[in-house]
Amino acid sequence: MMRIDGGVTAAKGFRAAGTAAGIKYQGRSDMAMIACERPCRVAGTFTTNVVKAAPVRWDQHIVYDVGMAQAVVCNSGIANACTGEEGMDCCRQTARAAAGELGINEEYVLTASTGVIGMQLPVERICEGTRKLAGLLADSPEAGSQAAKAIMTTDTVSKEAAVSIELGGKTVTIGGMCKGSGMIHPNMCTMLAFVTTDAVISREMLQEALSDVVKDTYNMVSVDGDTSTNDTVLLLASQMAGTREITEHGEDYDRFVEALREVNTVLARKIAGDGEGATALLEVMVKGAGTHQDAVTLAKSVVSSSLTKAAVYGHDPNWGRILCALGYAGVDFDPEKTDIYFESRAGRLKIVENGMDAGYSEEEASRILSEDEVRVEADLHGGDGQAVAWGCDLTYDYVRINADYRS
Amino acid sequence: MMRIDGGVTAAKGFRAAGTAAGIKYQGRSDMAMIACERPCRVAGTFTTNVVKAAPVRWDQHIVYDVGMAQAVVCNSGIANACTGEEGMDCCRQTARAAAGELGINEEYVLTASTGVIGMQLPVERICEGTRKLAGLLADSPEAGSQAAKAIMTTDTVSKEAAVSIELGGKTVTIGGMCKGSGMIHPNMCTMLAFVTTDAVISREMLQEALSDVVKDTYNMVSVDGDTSTNDTVLLLASQMAGTREITEHGEDYDRFVEALREVNTVLARKIAGDGEGATALLEVMVKGAGTHQDAVTLAKSVVSSSLTKAAVYGHDPNWGRILCALGYAGVDFDPEKTDIYFESRAGRLKIVENGMDAGYSEEEASRILSEDEVRVEADLHGGDGQAVAWGCDLTYDYVRINADYRS
Repeated sequence: MMRIDGGVTAAKGFRAAGTAAGIKYQGRSDMAMIACERPCRVAGTFTTNVVKAAPVRWDQHIVYDVGMAQAVVCNSGIANACTGEEGMDCCRQTARAAAGELGINEEYVLTASTGVIGMQLPVERICEGTRKLAGLLADSPEAGSQAAKAIMTTDTVSKEAAVSIELGGKTVTIGGMCKGSGMIHPNMCTMLAFVTTDAVISREMLQEALSDVVKDTYNMVSVDGDTSTNDTVLLLASQMAGTREITEHGEDYDRFVEALREVNTVLARKIAGDGEGATALLEVMVKGAGTHQDAVTLAKSVVSSSLTKAAVYGHDPNWGRILCALGYAGVDFDPEKTDIYFESRAGRLKIVENGMDAGYSEEEASRILSEDEVRVEADLHGGDGQAVAWGCDLTYDYVRINADYRS
Repeated sequence: MMRIDGGVTAAKGFRAAGTAAGIKYQGRSDMAMIACERPCRVAGTFTTNVVKAAPVRWDQHIVYDVGMAQAVVCNSGIANACTGEEGMDCCRQTARAAAGELGINEEYVLTASTGVIGMQLPVERICEGTRKLAGLLADSPEAGSQAAKAIMTTDTVSKEAAVSIELGGKTVTIGGMCKGSGMIHPNMCTMLAFVTTDAVISREMLQEALSDVVKDTYNMVSVDGDTSTNDTVLLLASQMAGTREITEHGEDYDRFVEALREVNTVLARKIAGDGEGATALLEVMVKGAGTHQDAVTLAKSVVSSSLTKAAVYGHDPNWGRILCALGYAGVDFDPEKTDIYFESRAGRLKIVENGMDAGYSEEEASRILSEDEVRVEADLHGGDGQAVAWGCDLTYDYVRINADYRS
């Protein structure tokens, strides 16, 4: 497996574009399009929130019932959530506009939105933006980056990743982009991620691969515990790599999943590290738990703890909050066997031994916590369960951004 | 039922005191004692955190196995959590010191601690403080207030409440104090609350009454989603009111429970309104849910949502976050039938109708959210389930307090 530059245009057959359509923001791009030269097999995972935005419901129909897709149209600024029939109609008009411009089936156009809940999208501008995007489509890395920039809301950096693998002597590429900064506590998937591949793979195996990978990547990210109404991960496979079709479990499938996991791990970490107001990526590994699911629950509990997050912001090695967050996760373990380590570029230090102060140096611990990527490792010595979760620190800026988001 | 002044010394038989023992803070009181002139029946509820502080384990033994208590010794500054055998030994020495001074059974002395996790208590100073407190005990309201002040950590105000009722022509009094500001997301009970009564009631009915009331009061409070290692509610009944003993369900029991609920509701609201860094008490009522338990889950989800809390701080009527938080609570309901109202001293306004913008005035909504007590009411029109939860807004000061708590 090789990490390569690029994002959604890295795989064969895909073009992308970003543009300013004046949806809500002024002076920045806010609409993106991804299009493939041929219909793709499509897989998707969506928010588990009872309140589902219109584009989520639109895409679920395509992923579950149609099974094919050829384009994605995405806007930032307004989420098209809690918008009733008018919101669904906006998806329909967007798809119709894109289909007309691209000369493709209207049922093959996925839509996605991110931003404020409860406002209606300006459908005229969306359709106008869609037509503009169709004319800008290109298969260059730059075009992919333009698309990644256009889907940002409070994100401070755009987020892309791509890898390639060899299958049967041919190159298979997977590339993706995502956005996500606040309202990030995915359950099924994250805010918005779009992944494209030229892999030749059946629809069933494509969905299985995505569902599997989402569990260990986006579903292990929490910025603020709020599961959005719009969370969507879409995976489009153009089938253009020229390899034998993957139709069952086996070596090819495993290598594809490994590559897909790599792309989505990079994207998930980027979401966590760019959490609203964050100054640090917080990675929490729990090992020695009774089961993998226990480790997942424990790691997410620590990464979601406001007190732990605030302590990381303050570079304060306040390990009691970590042990406390493990303790209220709802999973049984023996605190008196638990060890905790802090780790970053600045070093690695045992903070807790058998549930008590390990006699560490406060200065050294604080120095380790001062880096922009910080890792907490908790070893429960109670089994083989292991999991990693990602989050970020809790800062003044998180409050500033969210106390006045709409004005 | 009558609200009266006072706290833990309001009921017959109880004395209290607070003093500065130099545990961790300088220049302020940090130890409190409550003592009764005769052994009391005792009930308690404790944290469900797997990591339980030493005094929690100490008190559980007394409440579950001994069933009687005559004094409580509480310190602030250090939580005596994650302190191993040394921590348990400190409880033992504290109880011994108090028992010696008061001439009571060592097994009748409850202990409680709040503050930093992972540090050992200075046991000499604790014992010295205990002796000092025994000499200061008084049954005046002022003595009760001194005790309430001594158990504060990041609390900005001390918290007391008392009521009296008539049972069989005699007055029965219930009074209490509590503390709690951060690490507040009780599950079984809150940080620390001590309630005293002169009611004549069996141990079984006393525990049943407390367990019942805790569910609707402390367990409905969330400041930051972190369930502490030390959460403890203790209820001591001196049996001195001169009434007939309550030994079964009936009118007397119901009136006692109603009064107990009132005291604990006032205390729980005080904890929420004094959440770390809070500028406003946030009360969330959910009605029209399928069941009471659904309403509980939904109300707690909204009151725990960082994004909703930050919006309240910014006086931003960002109702999409409320609907979103209802949506990810894990309870089924129909968002398209949901109405949401904002209410405070400044007025009442329908914000959401049938899951969409009700066409309210942003200025009026923002004015309602500017008060220091704000109520969100969500009517799901799906059943009879109803519940109220309390929390507070999320502010810069929450981050400031918690990024640098220990220094």
